Amino acid sequence: MTRETITHRDGHVYEFGPEMDPVYEAADGESLTVETVDSLNGEIQADDDLLDAIPEEVNAATGPIAVAGASPGDVLAVEIEDVRVAEDRGRVLTAPGFGLLQDDPDIDHPATRITEVDGGDASGAADSGAETIDFEGIDVPIEPVIGTIGVATGGETVSTLTPDDHGGNLDTTDVTDGTTVYFPVFQEGAMLALGDAKAAMADGEMCGTGAEIAVEVDATLSVIEDPAVSPDRPLLDTGDAVKTVASAETMEEAVELANGDMLDLLAHDHGFSRTDAYLFSSLVGGLEVSQVVDPQVTARNAVPSEYLSLPF
Amino acid sequence: MTRETITHRDGHVYEFGPEMDPVYEAADGESLTVETVDSLNGEIQADDDLLDAIPEEVNAATGPIAVAGASPGDVLAVEIEDVRVAEDRGRVLTAPGFGLLQDDPDIDHPATRITEVDGGDASGAADSGAETIDFEGIDVPIEPVIGTIGVATGGETVSTLTPDDHGGNLDTTDVTDGTTVYFPVFQEGAMLALGDAKAAMADGEMCGTGAEIAVEVDATLSVIEDPAVSPDRPLLDTGDAVKTVASAETMEEAVELANGDMLDLLAHDHGFSRTDAYLFSSLVGGLEVSQVVDPQVTARNAVPSEYLSLPF
Repeated sequence: MTRETITHRDGHVYEFGPEMDPVYEAADGESLTVETVDSLNGEIQADDDLLDAIPEEVNAATGPIAVAGASPGDVLAVEIEDVRVAEDRGRVLTAPGFGLLQDDPDIDHPATRITEVDGGDASGAADSGAETIDFEGIDVPIEPVIGTIGVATGGETVSTLTPDDHGGNLDTTDVTDGTTVYFPVFQEGAMLALGDAKAAMADGEMCGTGAEIAVEVDATLSVIEDPAVSPDRPLLDTGDAVKTVASAETMEEAVELANGDMLDLLAHDHGFSRTDAYLFSSLVGGLEVSQVVDPQVTARNAVPSEYLSLPF
Repeated sequence: MTRETITHRDGHVYEFGPEMDPVYEAADGESLTVETVDSLNGEIQADDDLLDAIPEEVNAATGPIAVAGASPGDVLAVEIEDVRVAEDRGRVLTAPGFGLLQDDPDIDHPATRITEVDGGDASGAADSGAETIDFEGIDVPIEPVIGTIGVATGGETVSTLTPDDHGGNLDTTDVTDGTTVYFPVFQEGAMLALGDAKAAMADGEMCGTGAEIAVEVDATLSVIEDPAVSPDRPLLDTGDAVKTVASAETMEEAVELANGDMLDLLAHDHGFSRTDAYLFSSLVGGLEVSQVVDPQVTARNAVPSEYLSLPF
């Protein structure tokens, strides 16, 4: 089978909803390349391109991609094999009314810094060899992150600025090459869409962005029917750890959800009571911050792979 | 100089306040051994020892230890060289009204699991060679954590159950061997006290405890006069990363404080504007959860050591 490439020009969305029209139908188990534009649609190219407000259309997510055979109650596995930066610069920025320290009078809102890609000609090249971006003279390793990735929702319509149980704007650094992300399937075909990548991002995404950049993603999409544990929210396997991922209005709610989801997995894998799963969860791995700046915040509960195998 | 050993029998506190009577006065630069009892004073020794409520006196902190020459405005550096478990078992437990999932009807409150120390005879031995604890048949590596560590406060009196700007019940996994913890000095002599160690603990300490255990700590105490940056709260250097540590009523407030403190350090080290420090902080390292279960929660902002040198 020829590897298909789906680009944002083929189709992209600014909302995840219950009814989404696919731009492509993938076979179960198909490997694809997905091209994404940066979260701001290429409008920020220099330090004096300032963002006076978060645009209404932000985080364009390429897709949706239907996956044959995916039905409500199944799990969609997205195995991310490679993420390559596909332009010669990223951008990290503030905007008024956005970001963790938006009320700090000594921080400019708006402010933009272009982070040029070094180490190779990355302009459109898929295999550029680029290894770093430059922030004001400091080399920062390129460790790409797919910020927005999700599936059709169970009923509500959610902007690509907001993360929730369908995924969406999770802004989670683990969503990168080598990780498999699992989503509950709410609608026929699952309807995967993704975009909003960063060349580098801190856990927390404090200023409101990482180094936003266009990328190409190689991934394989598989349907898991009748999962032994039915996740309510996304979860992921980095190879080193299994992590539940939960979004909510407050960090306290998000970590409660992420911990509760982890107990389901630990109890199933070890035959633990929920009490033992909870006590064990308090000894290894632990809670992690994904982002604290979107309309809902996102947290993870990580357990090292040596203590937890997924049931699918 | 003979290495002095200070034990909880010499003195311990259940509160950090502005006026504390030292049990020992250390020289600036002195290396000590500090022995601590477990957070529950040895009262939980079997699975059927249950905790019906968090005791009023909890987290006994050995000390306080005055450090000669420490004055308000200075920084106290606590270089932790070794942490050894000093009994043959830890205990991980729930108690009613305590812990992240305290309202989950399928989790028993109270519940206790004894975690036996394997790999050696740890009963009181300082160099037992113990490497793991046992949780219901699963080996968990001993990675000790000093849960409560702090100095005399600027004015308020704070239980050893609560973390704040003076330190206290930080429950931060990085507070272990190889890490130097820095505290602002609020009172003459600084008045260090520590206890509440765990043989293992997850970031978050979700059930309300790690594997609580008595330990022996080797540490060197040094006074930094006229620091180039004056921290308002604890910070630490693990060797791999510099981390600010902040406690507040909500996780949102705690991460805001931790990020703001980090900007002071980044701006000083790189000559950055506060805006550039903020943008940079959003690219590398990031926010981390210490604990979400104490009367105030605790978060960190980490920056890898390659990007940040402390000014002291």
